[in-house]
Amino acid sequence: MKQADLASVARLLITCPDRPGIIAQVTTFLKDHGANITDLDQHSTDPIGGTFFMRLEFQTPHLDLSSKKLEEQFSTEVGTPFKMDWQLHYAANLRRMAVFVSKYDHAFLEVLWRCSRHELAMTIPFIISNHPDLESAAKHFNIPYYHIPVSKDTKAQAEENMLKLCQEHKVDGIILARYMQILSEQFIEQYPSRIINIHHSFLPAFIGANPYQQAYDKGVKLIGATAHYVTKDLDMGPIIAQDVVRASHRLNADELRILGQNVERTVLARAIKAHVEDRIIVDGNKTIVFDLE
Amino acid sequence: MKQADLASVARLLITCPDRPGIIAQVTTFLKDHGANITDLDQHSTDPIGGTFFMRLEFQTPHLDLSSKKLEEQFSTEVGTPFKMDWQLHYAANLRRMAVFVSKYDHAFLEVLWRCSRHELAMTIPFIISNHPDLESAAKHFNIPYYHIPVSKDTKAQAEENMLKLCQEHKVDGIILARYMQILSEQFIEQYPSRIINIHHSFLPAFIGANPYQQAYDKGVKLIGATAHYVTKDLDMGPIIAQDVVRASHRLNADELRILGQNVERTVLARAIKAHVEDRIIVDGNKTIVFDLE
Amino acid sequence: MKQADLASVARLLITCPDRPGIIAQVTTFLKDHGANITDLDQHSTDPIGGTFFMRLEFQTPHLDLSSKKLEEQFSTEVGTPFKMDWQLHYAANLRRMAVFVSKYDHAFLEVLWRCSRHELAMTIPFIISNHPDLESAAKHFNIPYYHIPVSKDTKAQAEENMLKLCQEHKVDGIILARYMQILSEQFIEQYPSRIINIHHSFLPAFIGANPYQQAYDKGVKLIGATAHYVTKDLDMGPIIAQDVVRASHRLNADELRILGQNVERTVLARAIKAHVEDRIIVDGNKTIVFDLE
Amino acid sequence: MKQADLASVARLLITCPDRPGIIAQVTTFLKDHGANITDLDQHSTDPIGGTFFMRLEFQTPHLDLSSKKLEEQFSTEVGTPFKMDWQLHYAANLRRMAVFVSKYDHAFLEVLWRCSRHELAMTIPFIISNHPDLESAAKHFNIPYYHIPVSKDTKAQAEENMLKLCQEHKVDGIILARYMQILSEQFIEQYPSRIINIHHSFLPAFIGANPYQQAYDKGVKLIGATAHYVTKDLDMGPIIAQDVVRASHRLNADELRILGQNVERTVLARAIKAHVEDRIIVDGNKTIVFDLE
Repeated sequence: MKQADLASVARLLITCPDRPGIIAQVTTFLKDHGANITDLDQHSTDPIGGTFFMRLEFQTPHLDLSSKKLEEQFSTEVGTPFKMDWQLHYAANLRRMAVFVSKYDHAFLEVLWRCSRHELAMTIPFIISNHPDLESAAKHFNIPYYHIPVSKDTKAQAEENMLKLCQEHKVDGIILARYMQILSEQFIEQYPSRIINIHHSFLPAFIGANPYQQAYDKGVKLIGATAHYVTKDLDMGPIIAQDVVRASHRLNADELRILGQNVERTVLARAIKAHVEDRIIVDGNKTIVFDLE
Repeated sequence: MKQADLASVARLLITCPDRPGIIAQVTTFLKDHGANITDLDQHSTDPIGGTFFMRLEFQTPHLDLSSKKLEEQFSTEVGTPFKMDWQLHYAANLRRMAVFVSKYDHAFLEVLWRCSRHELAMTIPFIISNHPDLESAAKHFNIPYYHIPVSKDTKAQAEENMLKLCQEHKVDGIILARYMQILSEQFIEQYPSRIINIHHSFLPAFIGANPYQQAYDKGVKLIGATAHYVTKDLDMGPIIAQDVVRASHRLNADELRILGQNVERTVLARAIKAHVEDRIIVDGNKTIVFDLE
Repeated sequence: MKQADLASVARLLITCPDRPGIIAQVTTFLKDHGANITDLDQHSTDPIGGTFFMRLEFQTPHLDLSSKKLEEQFSTEVGTPFKMDWQLHYAANLRRMAVFVSKYDHAFLEVLWRCSRHELAMTIPFIISNHPDLESAAKHFNIPYYHIPVSKDTKAQAEENMLKLCQEHKVDGIILARYMQILSEQFIEQYPSRIINIHHSFLPAFIGANPYQQAYDKGVKLIGATAHYVTKDLDMGPIIAQDVVRASHRLNADELRILGQNVERTVLARAIKAHVEDRIIVDGNKTIVFDLE
Repeated sequence: MKQADLASVARLLITCPDRPGIIAQVTTFLKDHGANITDLDQHSTDPIGGTFFMRLEFQTPHLDLSSKKLEEQFSTEVGTPFKMDWQLHYAANLRRMAVFVSKYDHAFLEVLWRCSRHELAMTIPFIISNHPDLESAAKHFNIPYYHIPVSKDTKAQAEENMLKLCQEHKVDGIILARYMQILSEQFIEQYPSRIINIHHSFLPAFIGANPYQQAYDKGVKLIGATAHYVTKDLDMGPIIAQDVVRASHRLNADELRILGQNVERTVLARAIKAHVEDRIIVDGNKTIVFDLE
């Protein structure tokens, strides 16, 4: 969709117990208030006792209520009766996504570049790094860069500073573009299903450190990357996107790493795109991704 | 979905000019008559003046009307007012798909095998071939095999016989699993958007004869296959599915052919699956495929 | 390569410590005895202290020695001085590969079919199954089918019978086309790096039972399959081939299984092809695959 | 391979009529002069009357001749007797690749970035553009940027200036990273098989202007890109690399373009990598690519 058109798009995400009449109720409500639905994707896991998942996009120009009123009435008339877990987002309110990074620049630059050309519908209010190395790259994109070193002793204080920055800048979510520190459970709880990490393997294979060396040692024939939401269980949060490429025996662990880093770039970008376009519902430890592709 | 569950599934495909309220109208109608929607996929090409495409699946056990009445009322209350082009299919009515083949067995056997294990929700009432070669394979699957030779002189008569068979067996559509005769315009018109062909190239590249040799001569790095609906313009009908695999310089034209034939098998099967599960809307010379994958 | 041409092709596989002059020595030896090399693929893991791997194909019509003499002289003049681990195979001697299967027919039929059309350069002297279900399929391909049930109590005896069959038929290797019994260490030792298994996941993820359910529960976005040599460590032997396909949230565990089974077919066929065309060197727990594609 | 190790690597590319003894002759020559071969990839198109293609890498530290002498002797003793078309490159002599670009920055930045992180073993002496837009990006990478506008009237003069720059900077080749001017035949002749273009379609489909619109209109299910050497026949030169991604019906022509541009980035980078690592032999209108992957 053209960037200009986003001004008039809203998106509704719904999870609830399945039963007859949900779509009729939702879409009649929207029609009655002047919305035109232009994209709807719905799926129930089972005809009996299943879970209902839906994403829809509608046009807002002819809405007859303020967004606040609309949400109140939707809650009363539709959301509560159907026991819905629902979110309503306006595409015009670009997500404010902070980017955390350490030293590797591949995933980081991909995100900054795709954001700068409006391929990712979001803004990056600032960057945090535990190293100073990537400051000039950040400057090139005119994004503030905060260098917050982390050591065992300073970790609690560092996280407090980071959290304060996130709150001051009202960030909606965080992108870990190869940020090599483990965030504490307390920090993660502030942004549930809103911190996206890129892991350099095809999870759940090769959890933990140095997955490219693990992949080399194991002799796998495909190298992959996985973007997932961060939970307190390291590398175990809900998977958003994955991809792989072929890896021949001619490649050593270093070359696998380079190959894999290019997969990381693509996979992270795809996951962020799905996130900021409200294409993801988290259901327990899994994601429902209403893919564009 | 489990085969057993198909007994209670109906699918509705709709194309119409976009305007507000279509989904509400359709889904309210269905709810009012006892249908529970379990899968819905909708897309409009443009918020203003666009075309509306929708596929939905609903559960039929609690319908309060016979299928005939339901269709009549739907037509009157929804279809006609919204100027819809719509189709309603019951999954329990398996499509009756005739298979035409010449001598190559790869695509042919793939279709027969996937059908026999219920991976393709259809029946094959008979097979027609212009050669006798594949009769024993047909016998293995207990499917009648009609050998109808075609020469320049006998073509008109042969097509008449073929058409008669199709009509007698009430076939819903035809699969050309590498049938090497060109069907006449008159024949094709009997089954618009219901004859599926597998072409052994990534169309629109390499239209016409011997695409593997063409691909070899051109030195392409990917070998592909395309499944499409047959129209009077050879190899130019609406594309349903395509795929490719890498082709190294070590492969000669014969080896490319073998490689490509395995892509043909997959692509044809995927196209047939989409067709018999009512996942395809034809719009002019293009298809909208509501993919499961 | 055309089947007819295989009569004159031999293949040499070499592993040895790297040092200068190996290729010159090998190829000069071959030239001096009338061989024409038509394909050579060589790689050293490191310029200093690395391991040398090579596969080459040569034409045999003008050899000046019997194969026995050629091997003796090669051993004396080249193999032993360079501390080579080497194998020489004549393409005309098609591998004799037994197929073990249980009840699932997808991988099994793929192997039988590709073998029957000479896509896999091998013969299948017989099939062993612990169930009677697939006998008629075997009959269709004119391959003897031995039903050898296995229970906890009869396992030792059953394996003895199976081994005897393998020895009587002089099999060169075994294909486990979804054979659901675990072979004993004693059995496996008889065919080191010569038993190929297809595992229905992207190993090392989802080792063990019911990987499709595991994949569903984990919400992975790609479903894969892995062909590997069988060792005493279950699901941990050297990986030969792997592939994946996208899996959307619309698919339940059963549908993932169907999707995955089609990947299994392709991956197993690719692994077998590499094996019977002498494209694989096993190096510790990894494989070097000199791929055609 | 680690960048540091490139200092001691040389690569030999050979095309000649096939006959017995070529590899022995080449590798014996190299061994006799102190070279250690670490990678060799050879293929003949046919055992009788075929063409012989070979790429090999060897270590240079123990060579007993200067590179000039080595080449002279190789020519006399091996190249000429076997009627070889051969090239010898030293990896330490990084290729000097000029980059031509117009306004689109996606392929351009990918090349600059991968070069800057040594993923592409080359230097970029300068950039030429017919527009001023991308100058600041060039500056970020510290590469001179020449703005040379081209109009119908000034084209001849502009090309002369461009050629002069290329010659002054002793460039080895040119990368067209979405340069929207057609180079004249005279210009192209100066750099045969050394100008790489990225075309935004899966050639030979969608030759010419606006391939994404063509792809949208045709309703193809895969969007691709093709990197090829430039010849006087527009979009028809030898293909080096190609790739595709799935394109759903939800994407309009603009979205297909964005999707495709990310394929262009990958495909162009892969083609350049193959070129600067001497992995390509051009044979008529085809390429032999000795791929790493």
